[in-house]
Amino acid sequence: MKKFEFFNPVRVIFGPGEFDRLGALTAMYGRRALLVTSKSPLEKMGVHEKAVELMRSAGLEVFELGGVEPNPKLSSVYEGIRICREKQVEVVIAIGGGSPIDCAKAIAVGAADSGDVWDFFTQKRSAVKALPVGAVSTLAATGAEMSVHCVISNEKTKQKYATHYEFNLPKFAIIDTELHKTVPRRLTACGLVDTITHAGENYFAGEKNTPVTDRIAEGLILTILENDGILNDLQNVEMRDNIAWAATLAINGLTDCGRGIYEYGAHMIEHAISGLFDVVHGEGLAIVHPAWLYYRCEREPRKFVQFAERVFGVPKQYGSEAEVGEKGITELKNRYKAWGLPTSLRQIGIEQVSYEEIADRVVQDPDSFIKDKSIVHRVLELCLK
Amino acid sequence: MKKFEFFNPVRVIFGPGEFDRLGALTAMYGRRALLVTSKSPLEKMGVHEKAVELMRSAGLEVFELGGVEPNPKLSSVYEGIRICREKQVEVVIAIGGGSPIDCAKAIAVGAADSGDVWDFFTQKRSAVKALPVGAVSTLAATGAEMSVHCVISNEKTKQKYATHYEFNLPKFAIIDTELHKTVPRRLTACGLVDTITHAGENYFAGEKNTPVTDRIAEGLILTILENDGILNDLQNVEMRDNIAWAATLAINGLTDCGRGIYEYGAHMIEHAISGLFDVVHGEGLAIVHPAWLYYRCEREPRKFVQFAERVFGVPKQYGSEAEVGEKGITELKNRYKAWGLPTSLRQIGIEQVSYEEIADRVVQDPDSFIKDKSIVHRVLELCLK
Repeated sequence: MKKFEFFNPVRVIFGPGEFDRLGALTAMYGRRALLVTSKSPLEKMGVHEKAVELMRSAGLEVFELGGVEPNPKLSSVYEGIRICREKQVEVVIAIGGGSPIDCAKAIAVGAADSGDVWDFFTQKRSAVKALPVGAVSTLAATGAEMSVHCVISNEKTKQKYATHYEFNLPKFAIIDTELHKTVPRRLTACGLVDTITHAGENYFAGEKNTPVTDRIAEGLILTILENDGILNDLQNVEMRDNIAWAATLAINGLTDCGRGIYEYGAHMIEHAISGLFDVVHGEGLAIVHPAWLYYRCEREPRKFVQFAERVFGVPKQYGSEAEVGEKGITELKNRYKAWGLPTSLRQIGIEQVSYEEIADRVVQDPDSFIKDKSIVHRVLELCLK
Repeated sequence: MKKFEFFNPVRVIFGPGEFDRLGALTAMYGRRALLVTSKSPLEKMGVHEKAVELMRSAGLEVFELGGVEPNPKLSSVYEGIRICREKQVEVVIAIGGGSPIDCAKAIAVGAADSGDVWDFFTQKRSAVKALPVGAVSTLAATGAEMSVHCVISNEKTKQKYATHYEFNLPKFAIIDTELHKTVPRRLTACGLVDTITHAGENYFAGEKNTPVTDRIAEGLILTILENDGILNDLQNVEMRDNIAWAATLAINGLTDCGRGIYEYGAHMIEHAISGLFDVVHGEGLAIVHPAWLYYRCEREPRKFVQFAERVFGVPKQYGSEAEVGEKGITELKNRYKAWGLPTSLRQIGIEQVSYEEIADRVVQDPDSFIKDKSIVHRVLELCLK
């Protein structure tokens, strides 16, 4: 293993009914709260209203920023910061999937600073603090509720960039799977892909002798595969629980420990694509992550043999290292197809004519370790495999 | 899964050479530090002296409590508290395995209170705060560096009792495996058993639908089994790294999430035994934990089939659920034998005449869920299996 630090002080509160604790938890961090929400079936079910009620009952003054979009936009972040400054907000609460949570994180950083928050995403400046954030996760997908990551799309420049500040970790994360039951099939499937991609991104990169980290990543991926029955039984709280906890742990730092690298290659390319074309993140990953894995397997197949064996039971006798490794990736891709997701760029209307622009975006992303456009081109070709 | 909270804000700093950061890290929590150490080969190697130097260079005033014994004694805790009060210590640092770390935790709780610290172990009173603790772990075993647990032996009453305060979690844990290389073979083997027992204690109890938690526990146990080559290659830092990270994660809360129970039956019985006879904790567990598992498997074999299959590759066709389950436990016990550890009470000189006294101790422990002495008798019989 390589040297690492692991620090994740998020208080996770997991279980059906735990949403009711939102007021008391929020009150620990301030009296004036901004509630960030997105358009979702929860709105119609009165969940947002109930959140306001819970917080008011705990003595809080509540301000609202609603309707945050998937791939949350910089304009929403600016609007949230404006409210925070005007109303002297002390704590930012998000309810939803990764979009409102990431939006809340960016608002919390921006509101604690006097300049332009986008500077932190372009890495022009580094942030030093943030307002406290609390998250109610209503979707098993991005793991934003327990991660340092925050991804925002600048709709003017079509850049989708990320920050990773430790002080931006939520103070608490409520994971109440009663609230997950309304997530529709397609979005649930996207969440499964997102989780597998998070557990898988660094698995094949950097230091190879990381048995604990490998076993954890494999265990999370196996849990997702073994609970994909959720797609035909959307109200099943047991399976919702299982995929939710896997999603949270997949990107809280545990799956990276000791690898000595922070690569996230598929995410870099997917961010460029969804920055340009506003693709749903999970669908973008269903296309790009297997292609990214084929690309890596072409170069260094050994670790893919372990993955193919342990996750898909591909026997060593299946063929050469490259063949066994590739078989594992194809099994994963077939699973995505079975879930009804696109696995080729063409299926979402992106043609070869856009590849050069995507490659440009990837190498320009200040967060990206890919600095050679030919790598992006090769991965995009493999998206057609 | 059952409802749960997961909160573990320990900053883990993992890697060879990271010991050098002790001074700067300690200085974040105070200017007057108590250094708690045990007798170990590290002392001769000058590690304790270097710790003092590192802390002094960071501007700290350092007081010392050395020579803490295995199964740390209440008298050492009292002595530490006395120093803290007299010298107005602000932060307590431990270097070593579980013994000095647990001793430091108890001192930190006692020094922040004006009464008798033993009250917290007998559950006469509850503690509400503690001085900050920092840990340098020099042994892969108890996981004390990232756990809420603190176990102290009262040498007068022969009680070995535990506390589990969230605010007693270390602020930081340095895991520098360069310092692990001097751990002798027998103690290294004891550490492997301790880790497996931590990952295994709740695995078979409570809620059965906990796939993420199961996979993590199995992954940690597999890592230990696959790295037991350390016993013939004590200086191997790669294997030291692997078993150290497994040991830390086995008892940081992750292996209990969603089980809805906190059982630790083997620990309850082992604590009674080592309270009475001052047995090395890992050796006690090598005897008691398999017996505890046989006891549970007699009653509810199903989960043992999963364990036997996934950890030891016992095929389902091996026999009935009970037979497959028992085979898994026997494989584990055989591994302990191969490591040269005792697996029967007789081997450590404890005869049947003591069973009633052990059973008495178990049911009197305020922390123990076992309130029926016949359970203890049955488990002690199974120690001879």
